[in-house]
Amino acid sequence: MAQAPSDALSRRLGAVRRTLAAQSLDALVVVALPNILYLTNFGGSSAIVVMTASRLLFITDSRYTTSVAETRGTPHECPELELVLVDGSYDATLSKVIGTMASARVGFEAPHLSVSRHAGLRARLGSARAAPELVPTEGIVERARVVKDAYELGLLREAARRLSGVAADLLAGLKRGQSELEVALGIDWQVRRAGFERSAFDTIVAAGPHAALPHARPSERRLDEGDLVVLDFGGVYGSYCVDLTRTVSVGQATARARDVYRAVLDAHDRAIAAVRPGASRFDIDAAARAALDEFGFAEAFGHGTGHGLGIEVHEDPRIVRRRPDVDQRDEALVAGMVFTIEPGAYFPGWGGVRIEDDIAVTETGVERLTDATTELVEI
Amino acid sequence: MAQAPSDALSRRLGAVRRTLAAQSLDALVVVALPNILYLTNFGGSSAIVVMTASRLLFITDSRYTTSVAETRGTPHECPELELVLVDGSYDATLSKVIGTMASARVGFEAPHLSVSRHAGLRARLGSARAAPELVPTEGIVERARVVKDAYELGLLREAARRLSGVAADLLAGLKRGQSELEVALGIDWQVRRAGFERSAFDTIVAAGPHAALPHARPSERRLDEGDLVVLDFGGVYGSYCVDLTRTVSVGQATARARDVYRAVLDAHDRAIAAVRPGASRFDIDAAARAALDEFGFAEAFGHGTGHGLGIEVHEDPRIVRRRPDVDQRDEALVAGMVFTIEPGAYFPGWGGVRIEDDIAVTETGVERLTDATTELVEI
Repeated sequence: MAQAPSDALSRRLGAVRRTLAAQSLDALVVVALPNILYLTNFGGSSAIVVMTASRLLFITDSRYTTSVAETRGTPHECPELELVLVDGSYDATLSKVIGTMASARVGFEAPHLSVSRHAGLRARLGSARAAPELVPTEGIVERARVVKDAYELGLLREAARRLSGVAADLLAGLKRGQSELEVALGIDWQVRRAGFERSAFDTIVAAGPHAALPHARPSERRLDEGDLVVLDFGGVYGSYCVDLTRTVSVGQATARARDVYRAVLDAHDRAIAAVRPGASRFDIDAAARAALDEFGFAEAFGHGTGHGLGIEVHEDPRIVRRRPDVDQRDEALVAGMVFTIEPGAYFPGWGGVRIEDDIAVTETGVERLTDATTELVEI
Repeated sequence: MAQAPSDALSRRLGAVRRTLAAQSLDALVVVALPNILYLTNFGGSSAIVVMTASRLLFITDSRYTTSVAETRGTPHECPELELVLVDGSYDATLSKVIGTMASARVGFEAPHLSVSRHAGLRARLGSARAAPELVPTEGIVERARVVKDAYELGLLREAARRLSGVAADLLAGLKRGQSELEVALGIDWQVRRAGFERSAFDTIVAAGPHAALPHARPSERRLDEGDLVVLDFGGVYGSYCVDLTRTVSVGQATARARDVYRAVLDAHDRAIAAVRPGASRFDIDAAARAALDEFGFAEAFGHGTGHGLGIEVHEDPRIVRRRPDVDQRDEALVAGMVFTIEPGAYFPGWGGVRIEDDIAVTETGVERLTDATTELVEI
């Protein structure tokens, strides 16, 4: 399993600590596992991290102590990590750890801590004058994760290369008469054979009218003459996610299918061409929408143009329409961001097209990470 | 995709409504997706349900409206479901829906709603005298889910039968020299070929010293003479999870391996034999621990004896040690509960053994759902 080098972890911890200082926090309780993985390389399913300006307390249970201990002295050990073994429950242990921080302002991840756990912690910490204060925070670690470091970019580049290979083999080998389920199973197999730990999400194979559902589930339906087939799949490689979609035609594409395909491809290409540091993420979405609008298909594109990729398959930045109810912060793209561009057009009862690639924002513009053909393949 | 019949959904909704009445709640906001699936058959990734004594408001976005509409008039449509299309964000829509319930006591799922979302809802609802009151609740739907209905038992039985077939083929086909990763990939493939939607968790194949880590990840390590190999895998079938572990020996097992295996198998058998309605879940755990203790291996069994199975792969009941910090409620087993029995013994540096089956509590005792051999297989 690929893991971040220790110096990358040091830089990440440093970035988070600068935010803590800026928000006058004495500590941060990190409970979201993707954030814990990012800060410590821990890939297990249960841990809590408590960061202060000088310490990194890592709470986990006996299932994981051996694997954490084994990273000591390796090039990817987590610097400063102090192991705290769970005593009783995780939250009981957590409250003991932060209970010693008299009068401290202790940030917690408000989007990831449930109302129940928060109430339990408050009750355990008590209301004495010197009891630490629990301060809600939002996205401190996530904001650091949005801009990928060199290690992450290398990993995502390699992951995208491997996923593109899967796509090329898939487009070459797809046969009419296969069921959506068979094709999906074959994709998942190839994703694993290509070195991915697992598929990044449930693979979508949606033929004919099913292709009109952006989140269709594979069924027993067989690929039939005249179908458009949306193939959307991803993989997790070294804990990082990549994601790719192609749409193929079974037999010769109809004039309407070619029209829709051309419009979606144009939206895809124009959105990618608009990517550069400083560009607005809303304008990338607008570029895709403008292209579809010129073809008269604006109404057929109901979802956003893209989403960030990293430890999670859907993370910031969100490449979406500018709307009053959408978070307007962090509008400008920054070199090192990695996200999908995946416009689509969907017509209930008829079908749909989606074309998706993964890109990185570079110092000068854009790097396409995935590189399978975007020509309309007829099988 | 198998789905619960409408009358099962009606009974589930009825059970939840009785709890609402008992807790003097006018409504319940359900945000946990497994709970939403249980109540409505909705298997998508975004929805919120608001239940009152007479209505079932189902909030989702345009990606899912077609698939929800398509269930209308089918034998598995959700009775009473009123579709509410997201307008703006999910929580903005939710606050509009409950904002109209003047002076109502509106329960929410405190373990599943984040502090951020809760604060946002409170702010949107305002503090006017007639504003609805948000009341934290715990486990209302989960408690209904603990006892499986006839539809669920049939599905879990079939899922366990299929997983047992995968196990039998695996035990027959395993070869020394294969890497843990290759074996894991083969298992995942066979799980899918057997009709499962996906693996229920990351498959564990842990050979030799790796077998000492209850949550080891498959590596390039090859199955070698003298290894014990823990094989732990599961599948999701019709949205329900089953889970099975076997441990095999590569070549003739050593005397110590046979000893440990015999102790774990005895723990497994005695725990299963102790299952009956009215028995304490803590006593099932104690039965397994007592067996290991007799062999002198009590210290080598660091995890719980089992966990409930259903829409989630880890749910209630938890078959664990009775301890002051463990939730003591719902101690008695009830017919219709389904859970794993999976004692193990782990020795750092040497290896380990785990044997896991899935069982259902019946009116008179226990039904074993999985049925692969528990003899020590030597490959």
